Amino acid sequence: MQIDLNADLAEGYGPWRMGDDEALLDMVSSANIACGFHAGDPLIMEQAVRAAAARGVDIGAHVGFPDRQGFGRRAMQIEPTELAAMVVYQLGALSGITRANGARMTHMSFHGALGNMAAADEALARPLVEAVARFDPALIVVSSTSRAIESAAGACGLRVATTFLADRAYDAQGLLVPRRLPGSVIHDRDAVLTRVRRLLREGVVETYDGTVIAAPAHSILLHGDTEGAVALARDIRREIESGGGVIRPVSSLMGEAQRA
Amino acid sequence: MQIDLNADLAEGYGPWRMGDDEALLDMVSSANIACGFHAGDPLIMEQAVRAAAARGVDIGAHVGFPDRQGFGRRAMQIEPTELAAMVVYQLGALSGITRANGARMTHMSFHGALGNMAAADEALARPLVEAVARFDPALIVVSSTSRAIESAAGACGLRVATTFLADRAYDAQGLLVPRRLPGSVIHDRDAVLTRVRRLLREGVVETYDGTVIAAPAHSILLHGDTEGAVALARDIRREIESGGGVIRPVSSLMGEAQRA
Amino acid sequence: MQIDLNADLAEGYGPWRMGDDEALLDMVSSANIACGFHAGDPLIMEQAVRAAAARGVDIGAHVGFPDRQGFGRRAMQIEPTELAAMVVYQLGALSGITRANGARMTHMSFHGALGNMAAADEALARPLVEAVARFDPALIVVSSTSRAIESAAGACGLRVATTFLADRAYDAQGLLVPRRLPGSVIHDRDAVLTRVRRLLREGVVETYDGTVIAAPAHSILLHGDTEGAVALARDIRREIESGGGVIRPVSSLMGEAQRA
Amino acid sequence: MQIDLNADLAEGYGPWRMGDDEALLDMVSSANIACGFHAGDPLIMEQAVRAAAARGVDIGAHVGFPDRQGFGRRAMQIEPTELAAMVVYQLGALSGITRANGARMTHMSFHGALGNMAAADEALARPLVEAVARFDPALIVVSSTSRAIESAAGACGLRVATTFLADRAYDAQGLLVPRRLPGSVIHDRDAVLTRVRRLLREGVVETYDGTVIAAPAHSILLHGDTEGAVALARDIRREIESGGGVIRPVSSLMGEAQRA
Repeated sequence: MQIDLNADLAEGYGPWRMGDDEALLDMVSSANIACGFHAGDPLIMEQAVRAAAARGVDIGAHVGFPDRQGFGRRAMQIEPTELAAMVVYQLGALSGITRANGARMTHMSFHGALGNMAAADEALARPLVEAVARFDPALIVVSSTSRAIESAAGACGLRVATTFLADRAYDAQGLLVPRRLPGSVIHDRDAVLTRVRRLLREGVVETYDGTVIAAPAHSILLHGDTEGAVALARDIRREIESGGGVIRPVSSLMGEAQRA
Repeated sequence: MQIDLNADLAEGYGPWRMGDDEALLDMVSSANIACGFHAGDPLIMEQAVRAAAARGVDIGAHVGFPDRQGFGRRAMQIEPTELAAMVVYQLGALSGITRANGARMTHMSFHGALGNMAAADEALARPLVEAVARFDPALIVVSSTSRAIESAAGACGLRVATTFLADRAYDAQGLLVPRRLPGSVIHDRDAVLTRVRRLLREGVVETYDGTVIAAPAHSILLHGDTEGAVALARDIRREIESGGGVIRPVSSLMGEAQRA
Repeated sequence: MQIDLNADLAEGYGPWRMGDDEALLDMVSSANIACGFHAGDPLIMEQAVRAAAARGVDIGAHVGFPDRQGFGRRAMQIEPTELAAMVVYQLGALSGITRANGARMTHMSFHGALGNMAAADEALARPLVEAVARFDPALIVVSSTSRAIESAAGACGLRVATTFLADRAYDAQGLLVPRRLPGSVIHDRDAVLTRVRRLLREGVVETYDGTVIAAPAHSILLHGDTEGAVALARDIRREIESGGGVIRPVSSLMGEAQRA
Repeated sequence: MQIDLNADLAEGYGPWRMGDDEALLDMVSSANIACGFHAGDPLIMEQAVRAAAARGVDIGAHVGFPDRQGFGRRAMQIEPTELAAMVVYQLGALSGITRANGARMTHMSFHGALGNMAAADEALARPLVEAVARFDPALIVVSSTSRAIESAAGACGLRVATTFLADRAYDAQGLLVPRRLPGSVIHDRDAVLTRVRRLLREGVVETYDGTVIAAPAHSILLHGDTEGAVALARDIRREIESGGGVIRPVSSLMGEAQRA
């Protein structure tokens, strides 16, 4: 059993920090780096890129809405053409930083409200994923389960790595239950670890309403914004390894790009 | 006689425009595109990139301070390490947009107060130019005469193209006379055209204090923020061509990069 | 017949301008000044305040979303509590500038997407209008016809001045037809002037679908972002005055505040 | 012996926090609230205003450069006229929030690089302090020792409250030793408390070079950005009270405004 562990990094801005990037980098095999729109700035991004590269951790772009104050979590109505240009701008910016530091960018994912909107609407996912492919067809799109993203990526020849959110409830369609609903975020440590165990051994997840569905996953998302979160991440890592699982960067788990 | 004509493009932001990009693109052979810090946004940058590429105009990054309200014209004291990361971020962002649109980035230049500060201070020029070289050693640095920039670029193996500002007074050292001084900007059309003629035929410019100095130039900068400026740009172009000059993109005027 | 003419001012930012504030100020009796969120900055606001005060033009706050790049025209999902704080911040900022320049603020209005959303949703209008009342119960809310705004203002004891958009189509409920629909913006000069004439003489407007409805109006909104718009504004002013109408600032047309 | 304790509050932005506002508010008698330029946003400002008002803590505006990424600590060359408008904008914004929450603003201070520049240059201090007076002549200017600020305030009839930085070294002129110099920040708890004791009992401070100078102080600044800082603040408070000192809001320590 091989699986990737990923986390969101470089989520500070200027004098402010969020999460413990160094602690997370010791646990994950791939990093999603904020690109300066919802969070992150050039210096913070560069520090994260160097720290990830030094550990052999895969580096990806975490692309979001241009809304720092709202941390990219507020829905914004932006024309798809303009949003696509914003996606490319962010991919390019991080790519520039990896390139100038002797590293490379392997994947990307959509953050926050942009991620939720794209995952739920193929008319939006299509131009955004096409923009990723126009930028670099070898990039892997990392996403929680979403037919819209998968279909758009398929049409462009992009590979999709599915990520599993161990502490978030799923509905029967495999979509995330919105944060505002009670029970959508699972705080109990043992419940989270049980979910990881079932995912790894049986490839399933028990949904919000008690049914059990298949849960394909190339990666598991770890959080690191609180001390408890870092400890839980450590537990998840241990759970995987004690079960004989091997943690590997997402780029080594996917087949070759079709037309890189 | 071959020379490049360049202009600053994509200097709008959101709903606001500055200059007439289309009109300028019909006259220049290379474009310096704002990268979203002092001006420009992803959509405006993409439109400029497409319009430039469609005309075979060279595309370069116009890199500035993170100060939209001040249009990058206000000096800011930023640590060189952080500034270098900002330079790379901007180069990457524009490079991403060229790449996603089937174009390529050939050069870069420093805008406004950042340009003035770097041109006057090798301790600042060095880390910034090194950042350019770390990003892409094949990029050409376009700059008005500056020993600091030339020396820093030489140390990194980067090529420098010297640009001539036809409507700005030079001092005896070949540096631009600051805008705040009277006579620093030359408004008289005939005086500007005379300067272009002497530059092309004799390779010299008459300085602020009346001496005549050598003025090496690979390129001439055109302005386009007013109607008069566009008309003057047209006159400069005509002046060059009527004298038998050939206008060519900057990348075709420079030798090969030493270690591209 | 007395009516106010109002226009949106201070819609530039940093080096960028939008509309001709001076030309508009010669035609209107009240000004809606952008407060630095969707447009405007402290210096531009101060210049507009001084120019308005010098002409005896009423000064109001044009409050918008925190989205300069989108000019406040993109819907954003922001919690009402936070939005209310943003409204107060903007009112305070302009109020500070009027106070420091010996002027006073008489009214406020909601700009762009924020205005559309508040006008259509009393659950949103209520906390925003309450925030206005908490800041200053003597302020007049200027709005196009909206039951949500009127009801919220009524509940707080705030006065509402209804503004008429001469170049925008109305539906049978008196709401503005969205900009994206064909025919929503009336470009024909004579059609616009005819609408102004009927409004002034009969107090009615012909709607999008041809019916005629009552159109109460304390004010008419003039645009000034193009040369044609300024000319049209001049024509509207002439239309009013030639019909014997008197143009007066909005604050002089409304009764006293109930609890100022 | 009566003295004020003050601290900088509302220094978060969007999702990011800095310092523990609630813990500090339990110790201080006056609060300097960031106004959205170098830090702070409307919601964070409103929360701080309410928490301060609930404890009877004086509320002041902490006015800074428009540079969130640099936290207002980077020098910027902005024209005094524009800076003055930025000062008024920030004063107005916080004043709006106090007014809408039934509180009032008693004082203001300049933050970071703006504070350092104004304290060292009367040509800059003058227009900024005049802007404060134009906004409200009853505001108290809180500042570390600065002849430039005191002289400018005197010319405008504004009162100045001098604040003492217990953990920062002073030079023989009573100015702060720049942060970049070794020994400029005093980390030793006992050394800080000794300085507070001498200030309170003898009205003096031992300077960087070992001389002893008079140190007039209406207030002592407490930091709260680390846990150690909060503990030290508590110790300083205890030191004052155990010596019989009484802690009172700055507005109650100053005489009446001359022309409020």
